[in-house]
Amino acid sequence: MTAPTGRDLARLSINQETVKQWSLPELAEGCAAAGIGAVGLWRAPVQEYGLRRAARLMRDHGLTVTSLCRGGFFTATDPGGRAAALDDNRAAIDEAAELETGTLVLVSGGLPPGDRDIAAARERVADAIGELAPYAAERGVRLAIEPLHPMFASDRCVISTLGQALDIAERFPADRVGVVVDTYHLWWDDLAPAQIVRAGAGGRLACFQVADWVTPLPEGVLLGRGQLGDGCVDLRGLREQVDATGFRGPVEVEIFNAALWARDGAELVAEIADRYVRHVL
Amino acid sequence: MTAPTGRDLARLSINQETVKQWSLPELAEGCAAAGIGAVGLWRAPVQEYGLRRAARLMRDHGLTVTSLCRGGFFTATDPGGRAAALDDNRAAIDEAAELETGTLVLVSGGLPPGDRDIAAARERVADAIGELAPYAAERGVRLAIEPLHPMFASDRCVISTLGQALDIAERFPADRVGVVVDTYHLWWDDLAPAQIVRAGAGGRLACFQVADWVTPLPEGVLLGRGQLGDGCVDLRGLREQVDATGFRGPVEVEIFNAALWARDGAELVAEIADRYVRHVL
Repeated sequence: MTAPTGRDLARLSINQETVKQWSLPELAEGCAAAGIGAVGLWRAPVQEYGLRRAARLMRDHGLTVTSLCRGGFFTATDPGGRAAALDDNRAAIDEAAELETGTLVLVSGGLPPGDRDIAAARERVADAIGELAPYAAERGVRLAIEPLHPMFASDRCVISTLGQALDIAERFPADRVGVVVDTYHLWWDDLAPAQIVRAGAGGRLACFQVADWVTPLPEGVLLGRGQLGDGCVDLRGLREQVDATGFRGPVEVEIFNAALWARDGAELVAEIADRYVRHVL
Repeated sequence: MTAPTGRDLARLSINQETVKQWSLPELAEGCAAAGIGAVGLWRAPVQEYGLRRAARLMRDHGLTVTSLCRGGFFTATDPGGRAAALDDNRAAIDEAAELETGTLVLVSGGLPPGDRDIAAARERVADAIGELAPYAAERGVRLAIEPLHPMFASDRCVISTLGQALDIAERFPADRVGVVVDTYHLWWDDLAPAQIVRAGAGGRLACFQVADWVTPLPEGVLLGRGQLGDGCVDLRGLREQVDATGFRGPVEVEIFNAALWARDGAELVAEIADRYVRHVL
């Protein structure tokens, strides 16, 4: 493979969870060394390293934080659980502000145990976002609703399609609530192209993430994402659809895959950069 | 649990794969003994037992065959693969006719290796159905397009929603091509209720199957279906939506689950009948 140039990688962002084998300093140094200028971060490793220290680390390496993962998990029915979720999301908003990212990714949460009313759960998500959006706006953070693949609907995210995400986001001003387009979650949906146009026209595209779809899915399905180009997703076609709406934001690579985590981080990031140029750019 | 009466079970059909531990004679005897008058069959065990012999066995036990699983797998791009699929589907139509079931369930097939064009794959499915529908109609068999959960889109079925299934079915006369509504595949979809109305209004509801959704999903996800009542699907609500269209056909229980297969067949069928009355009827 030929090493991609800095210009090729101008929009590339590496989500931290993709290179989970790296510590935060390794991520900062490794991305900077690979000519990559942006990362998506996760709350737990940032908290562990120290929020201000993490923010300084990113600045010192010239890295933009394209998103913070993640808030959400709004579907508790009991008042205590709901209040705790809102508190935790305010903390996530504060963390996003400190990291100077404008985007907090929200994964809505699944159905509470024994619950069979997914429509009501989706309304609880909308209610919670309504409570949080003003606070997020004060801190300069936009909430980004991420639809997850329908295989996660019961235990992780009751928002399964871009259409559902937009139905909620559009109740609020576009500068406060947007959506995430992740190729892994939406590739199968014949209605996604029209919803991408809708998201772009409404100024709702807050985050664009890429991963490929490969089978067989592992037990629990969470770690089944594929390296770019290894699967059946038309990554370039989806990137072109997103760009056709006028989007010029980062392309964040988010792959959860134990086989990739077992490899050398620098080698993996070099492969991702190469695959990005060949399959996405 | 109180044993359900024959009247309660009037619409209940047991899909053979739900009680895979039973031979075909055990299935016929076991269902008849449990007061269940209908079964869904699978091609491989029927072929193994002998087609005519299987048909006679069902008649001798007073059992209606509500569906035959399955035809389909239409997405090959090479002419040889396509011709083989069409031949195999003609054989499946003949088998359905011999079993005196009016319904052949079609699982469309996934993406060929290396292929990333899911829209084109769906068109190949429509083309194949167009070729087969007249032959099926001659034999008194209706083709029933089954949308499978989007987690199967790449390797098993490019038709993921009831809307997609109807978009193809409606190109053909309603008495030739219908759709399958399976709660396991559609429960998460906020657009499914309107599509159920559409299917009913057009006379397209060829088969109604029930299973529950439970997590975590097992490796490969195929055998992850849950016993009725064990999961988060509003089974009764979906049955009521289907019935509200005027549907009065069978309710076929189709659960693939290794833990259920490890149990005594008669005990399992008794539990299914009880769960059916409590969660579906």
